[in-house]
This record gives sequence, structure tokens and C-alpha cells, in this order.
Amino acid sequence: MMNRMTAIKGYHILADLWGCPPEKVNKASRLEEILIDTTSKVGFRVVGKSFYQFKPNGATGVVLLETSHISIHSWPEFNFVALDVYSCSGKTKAKKAIRYLVGVLNPEKVQIREVERFK
Amino acid sequence: MMNRMTAIKGYHILADLWGCPPEKVNKASRLEEILIDTTSKVGFRVVGKSFYQFKPNGATGVVLLETSHISIHSWPEFNFVALDVYSCSGKTKAKKAIRYLVGVLNPEKVQIREVERFK
Repeated sequence: MMNRMTAIKGYHILADLWGCPPEKVNKASRLEEILIDTTSKVGFRVVGKSFYQFKPNGATGVVLLETSHISIHSWPEFNFVALDVYSCSGKTKAKKAIRYLVGVLNPEKVQIREVERFK
Repeated sequence: MMNRMTAIKGYHILADLWGCPPEKVNKASRLEEILIDTTSKVGFRVVGKSFYQFKPNGATGVVLLETSHISIHSWPEFNFVALDVYSCSGKTKAKKAIRYLVGVLNPEKVQIREVERFK
């Protein structure tokens, strides 16, 4: 069992991604790979995960972090992905995670909302 | 495997809960019960879940829904809980879920932020 740092102040980025290539976002297994890759690149520690494949299209999933979570929901039929990075290990890591994910998912347009938690 | 309705317009409630009794929010197993109870009360269909117990205090978890997710992160040492309900099955269900959760977790103060997704 992992000890948690008592970091509590959180930075939550909500990113809506439009115009994602459907073949990039349709498979739960691929989204899982992408999210786990993100945690490695950024240095987030993973404490759990769950992913699910819808029929005929779309997937949903979450990676639980020592410092909160990354979630993803895809609607390939609309080329749309809703992505959340909630990090209690600082703004820099959250932004780095979003930058990496947006780079991989390759949307035409991104809408970002940022929310401070425990403020 | 579940077919997903093509509901995509989402309603995301971010709730920061202050002054929660620590004994209510310390155990991952109890948070899991509460979140699953919420899905039953509201009529959300569950497609996955993951929960994790920290040492010495705190827990984290998520329930994946057919229509997005509910996540919870607790810091009993600060009497604080960060709660998210992201619902693509309408504002009414999301609000009902938050009302139920706040009722059970019994905070002294709640800060709610609401974000429309796929807007």
C-alpha cells in the first residue's frame, strides 16, 4: 500500500478535443496505453485503472494516480474526446500531461478549462 | 459489451467538500459503497470501477459510467473531499447524484463548479 504525500491543493484541467482521428480514439486498449504512457512521461504514480470498450464505437477509461486522476471518454463518431487531468502534484505536471495527450490524440481544436481544487 | 447511447453533450459538476467527518471518508471500501449506491439511486449504469486505500489516511476512486464517470478523492486529515460527477445523461441526473453524495458525506461547506462539455 502506498503512502500518500499530503499534497492537497489540486489543479484540474478539463480538455474537450474536437476533430480527433477516429482510429486513434476508438479502442479502449489504445487509450489505456496512451494514458499509461502519459503517466510515465510526466512522472505520475499509478494506483489503479479501469477501461471499457463500447459497441459499436467509443471507449472510456480512467487511471487513478497517487495524486488524483486522468480520465478519458471518446466518441469517435463525433471525432470527440473529453479528457481530464486532475493533479495534486502541481500545475506543471498537469500541463505537461495535457500537452502530451493532445500531441498524441491530434485534435483539430482543443477547448481547455482550468479549475483549482481545494482553493 | 454495452451499447452506448450517442448522448455526448455532457454536464460536469466539480464539488469540493470541506469539513467532512473523517470517519465517513477515510476508507476506500466505504467510498466505493457510497458511489455505487449513488449510481443505483440516480440510474447511472456502471461499466467499471477502481478504488485505492492510502496509508495512513485517505482514499481515491472512480466509477466509470455508461455516461462518463464519478470520481472521489479524500483527505480525511484535512476533512476534504474532491468529487466529480460527469454525466452525458443530462443535468438532472448529475445534480441528483451530487445532492445524494453531499447528503451522505455531510460536509460543512461545499464549493460547486459546473462545466458543460462538448459545448
